[in-house]
Amino acid sequence: MQISELVRRADVPLATVKFYIREGMLPPGRATSATRAEYDEAHLERLRLIRSLTIVAGLSLNRAKKILDVVDHPEGSIYQMLGRAIDALASGPSDDVDPQRRYPRAEAALASLGPAYDTSDHRMAAFAQLESALLAVEEAGMPADTARLRLYGDHLMAIARAEIDGMPAGDPRAAVQYAVLGTTLYEPVLAAIRRLAHQNLAVDA
Amino acid sequence: MQISELVRRADVPLATVKFYIREGMLPPGRATSATRAEYDEAHLERLRLIRSLTIVAGLSLNRAKKILDVVDHPEGSIYQMLGRAIDALASGPSDDVDPQRRYPRAEAALASLGPAYDTSDHRMAAFAQLESALLAVEEAGMPADTARLRLYGDHLMAIARAEIDGMPAGDPRAAVQYAVLGTTLYEPVLAAIRRLAHQNLAVDA
Repeated sequence: MQISELVRRADVPLATVKFYIREGMLPPGRATSATRAEYDEAHLERLRLIRSLTIVAGLSLNRAKKILDVVDHPEGSIYQMLGRAIDALASGPSDDVDPQRRYPRAEAALASLGPAYDTSDHRMAAFAQLESALLAVEEAGMPADTARLRLYGDHLMAIARAEIDGMPAGDPRAAVQYAVLGTTLYEPVLAAIRRLAHQNLAVDA
Repeated sequence: MQISELVRRADVPLATVKFYIREGMLPPGRATSATRAEYDEAHLERLRLIRSLTIVAGLSLNRAKKILDVVDHPEGSIYQMLGRAIDALASGPSDDVDPQRRYPRAEAALASLGPAYDTSDHRMAAFAQLESALLAVEEAGMPADTARLRLYGDHLMAIARAEIDGMPAGDPRAAVQYAVLGTTLYEPVLAAIRRLAHQNLAVDA
């Protein structure tokens, strides 16, 4: 297909498609003349993935590139790839794990989360996120006691298990795409459902 | 206490304290001379609440004012106040519920969430949030089937019940503060724990 059709089918502006090609995120088309190039279904699928990561999931260009790098270099087991992809997801520069930094709140919390949570690897990006989140809770004077953390840990582990069970088997690229998009895109779904639950409990009481 | 002590104890800059007074969010001190005013513990507590809502929880000034309005006008039952407070929390202008708008994805999803979720009131702000979140999931080609939504609905209702049970009884103001800060500040905690769960499952497999 020509680039005009690619643009239409992926619902991404022409200038943005050209930008992704210049940035090396999307491979260029196959040149058929001095001014024309041909694109195929693989280009369309790739463009849809980039669109999902950036426009739909709202990841920065840098984060999206890291995820594409994991998808493009399927090294190790599917689960090692997953770990690298979820690390690349962390939502801001402050979420990058600094090996010199300590995470006292997250470390203390981990023991409360239940036996399914491993305490041996603190280099996970989610660990730095948990530290910031618990700091905000503490600054507002809200509780983050063992009972509450254990409650959260048990229910979220059950949710995560079911999510991982639904991952496409066999194709590592598809599995990583599923995991990365799922981690990001279901977060707002979970937040909205929790608020609905609060409102329902408020109305019923 | 003088304003300098208020500033120090609440850890909010002087200019910001003056701004909150001008905006009517914080009552002025009791004038003790032409140039001096006296502040008390109630001022400090109010200032800490404003700080939690704006600086810690990251709410806009407009949203924070709506919450303060609920806290300042404890009308109806605690649960009616909670409903109003959670409505005021919605994270962006697009989350405001438009009575003319339809929420087809959220409406369809609600039936999957389980019997504890009421389908009669669609004017909740969380309803518009759920619609946007499900639209993003759909655009990325990810599943949002009945089994997944029911899984989320059941676990989040269990979490929400325990959270509401922990609410301070007796004092409506304290209850609303707890609910509003809790709804907002535990969301990042829940998101970080879910990511840790995914990473643990990836490592263990």
